[in-house]
Amino acid sequence: MFELKIDNAKYWRDCVESIVSLIDEGSFNISKEGISLKAMDPSGISMVSFFMPSKAFSKFEVEKATSIGLNIENLGKVLSRARDDEVLVMKDADSKLLIEFIGKGVRRRYKLPLIDVRKNVDKEPNVQFDANVEVAGEPLKEIIKDANLISSYISFKAAKDSFTITAHGDSGELEEVHEPDGNIIKRLEAQKAAEATFNLEYLENMVKSCPVGNSITMSLRSNEPIKMSYNIGDAVITYYLAPYMES
Amino acid sequence: MFELKIDNAKYWRDCVESIVSLIDEGSFNISKEGISLKAMDPSGISMVSFFMPSKAFSKFEVEKATSIGLNIENLGKVLSRARDDEVLVMKDADSKLLIEFIGKGVRRRYKLPLIDVRKNVDKEPNVQFDANVEVAGEPLKEIIKDANLISSYISFKAAKDSFTITAHGDSGELEEVHEPDGNIIKRLEAQKAAEATFNLEYLENMVKSCPVGNSITMSLRSNEPIKMSYNIGDAVITYYLAPYMES
Amino acid sequence: MFELKIDNAKYWRDCVESIVSLIDEGSFNISKEGISLKAMDPSGISMVSFFMPSKAFSKFEVEKATSIGLNIENLGKVLSRARDDEVLVMKDADSKLLIEFIGKGVRRRYKLPLIDVRKNVDKEPNVQFDANVEVAGEPLKEIIKDANLISSYISFKAAKDSFTITAHGDSGELEEVHEPDGNIIKRLEAQKAAEATFNLEYLENMVKSCPVGNSITMSLRSNEPIKMSYNIGDAVITYYLAPYMES
Repeated sequence: MFELKIDNAKYWRDCVESIVSLIDEGSFNISKEGISLKAMDPSGISMVSFFMPSKAFSKFEVEKATSIGLNIENLGKVLSRARDDEVLVMKDADSKLLIEFIGKGVRRRYKLPLIDVRKNVDKEPNVQFDANVEVAGEPLKEIIKDANLISSYISFKAAKDSFTITAHGDSGELEEVHEPDGNIIKRLEAQKAAEATFNLEYLENMVKSCPVGNSITMSLRSNEPIKMSYNIGDAVITYYLAPYMES
Repeated sequence: MFELKIDNAKYWRDCVESIVSLIDEGSFNISKEGISLKAMDPSGISMVSFFMPSKAFSKFEVEKATSIGLNIENLGKVLSRARDDEVLVMKDADSKLLIEFIGKGVRRRYKLPLIDVRKNVDKEPNVQFDANVEVAGEPLKEIIKDANLISSYISFKAAKDSFTITAHGDSGELEEVHEPDGNIIKRLEAQKAAEATFNLEYLENMVKSCPVGNSITMSLRSNEPIKMSYNIGDAVITYYLAPYMES
Repeated sequence: MFELKIDNAKYWRDCVESIVSLIDEGSFNISKEGISLKAMDPSGISMVSFFMPSKAFSKFEVEKATSIGLNIENLGKVLSRARDDEVLVMKDADSKLLIEFIGKGVRRRYKLPLIDVRKNVDKEPNVQFDANVEVAGEPLKEIIKDANLISSYISFKAAKDSFTITAHGDSGELEEVHEPDGNIIKRLEAQKAAEATFNLEYLENMVKSCPVGNSITMSLRSNEPIKMSYNIGDAVITYYLAPYMES
């Protein structure tokens, strides 16, 4: 038995969009601390870890810690129907998730079936990262588009004084050198130079829900998975993506 | 012989768009009272009835009542070419419909062939409706999208104190309860509760030409066709749609 | 060895877009006077001639006149990545074209391979035109859309006092008569009436890069190619298109 209430339905929609960009189904864990989800994408090369603290809700009642498996894609579609100024309530009802949008003079109730999630994921990859780069979200989205012109892969290289992006393809090459001037690169810490190559399509999905004006923190270690993380209000979304190894 | 003139070509375009959303061909009847069209959609489950009074025109000359059969889809495309501040003239010329857009220093004349319309429709369905609901147009468009997430059909239920929408599908259920608070439901009169289910694609086409800010009046009787009607300036568009009977 | 610098990267992007709308590959000739390109479209029925004077660049260094063959489509895609307030530098480097976008704290360098252009074009068609019509760019784009409703071809007729557009098709006819009132038709000079028919798809591609507010000059002679030309800042783009001969 649980009942969660958010004063701004569109905020919860934005949170779920950050999950659905990689994941089609998963289990939300609801406990006194808040609501969380860990899941791998169907291909198994990326992972999502989401957490939203109970304080982000105007009502957060949960009898005992519980887990609800959902088709996240359907959940995202239902939440896309949120209107301005609507309050959202989520609760369990007859083995379904009841999603109620409450506006002026109208209650809209969707019921979604609970599902058995095939694969549950408990822990995040354990990598000792060598470098952390904090990049403004909008420019990072543009950088990914820059590389997309040329290739399906992008290489990130974090060094002491610069963050470099490269991409290679039949139609040309790209090299972008960024200095940490506080404009695009907000922060750059590299104990050791770190370089790795990643699939652009996954990266694109990982950055796209970053709210305008927010920064994205990337953690790198040569030829290891990248960790990417940003805030959506009080919630935190973290992604991991395995490196691409050129054969 | 007729000659009709409208000072705002885009207004007539909007009127024809409300017809073309369901109908691909039909006959306009032009008489002293105005211009009207009644037609069934090709599948025969819906009907359009349009009327625009002669006073909506700045010139309305018609010798004797006449009927012109047109490919309404082509007519709609031609009218989509209306520019701001253009006057529109329609007249008959050599068994064609001459459509003239008159702007500054330019006359653009389209001629459309007249066609024999296969099926003419004279009268509207005769239903003794039990309930009338007046709904603001924009929210009704959103309600239809709400249901579209879940199903291809929507059920409307008008009762004394509430107007309820339901939809059911494999991915979930929707129930929306609206009170007639004057915000979304402008008016609700139900002599008797009335409930019926309709195809969403047709409903979507029926509401889409409703001008922003206008209301749509729906008349219902259990398991009978729905009547939907709204104004476009001085013109009135009315649609009928047969109910969907679950087998 | 050359190095060209433009203070507004998006300006050069706009210039290249005017070429890429018809041409997929071609050779730029770089000489002290400026940069130019002449190329035929793959079908051979149209031609592009582009010229941008050296004064349009903030730096224009060229040791000796040189020619660089490029996949113009790829060049266009790279230039589409220009951001606001970026400076653009183009130079040769290791048999590639280096395109450098310089913004605040970031240098983005694309390298594009040089290619052997299959067919080089040296001269423009030699036609003694009978009429010149200068038309505002935006209305001309609309005129082309007007005709597109009805046909894949459009006829232009320039006479002493009027410029007339016609199109014919199964779904109807169009006739537009424009007087040279300075509004849409800025200038009309016809020593002799000139009339010819052209493919609309090509015309559409030819007019689409005309900057908002600019005029397009068309030169006509009956059943001869049309010449169309407009300015993009200091650059001039000229197109030729063979007439369509109804069989």
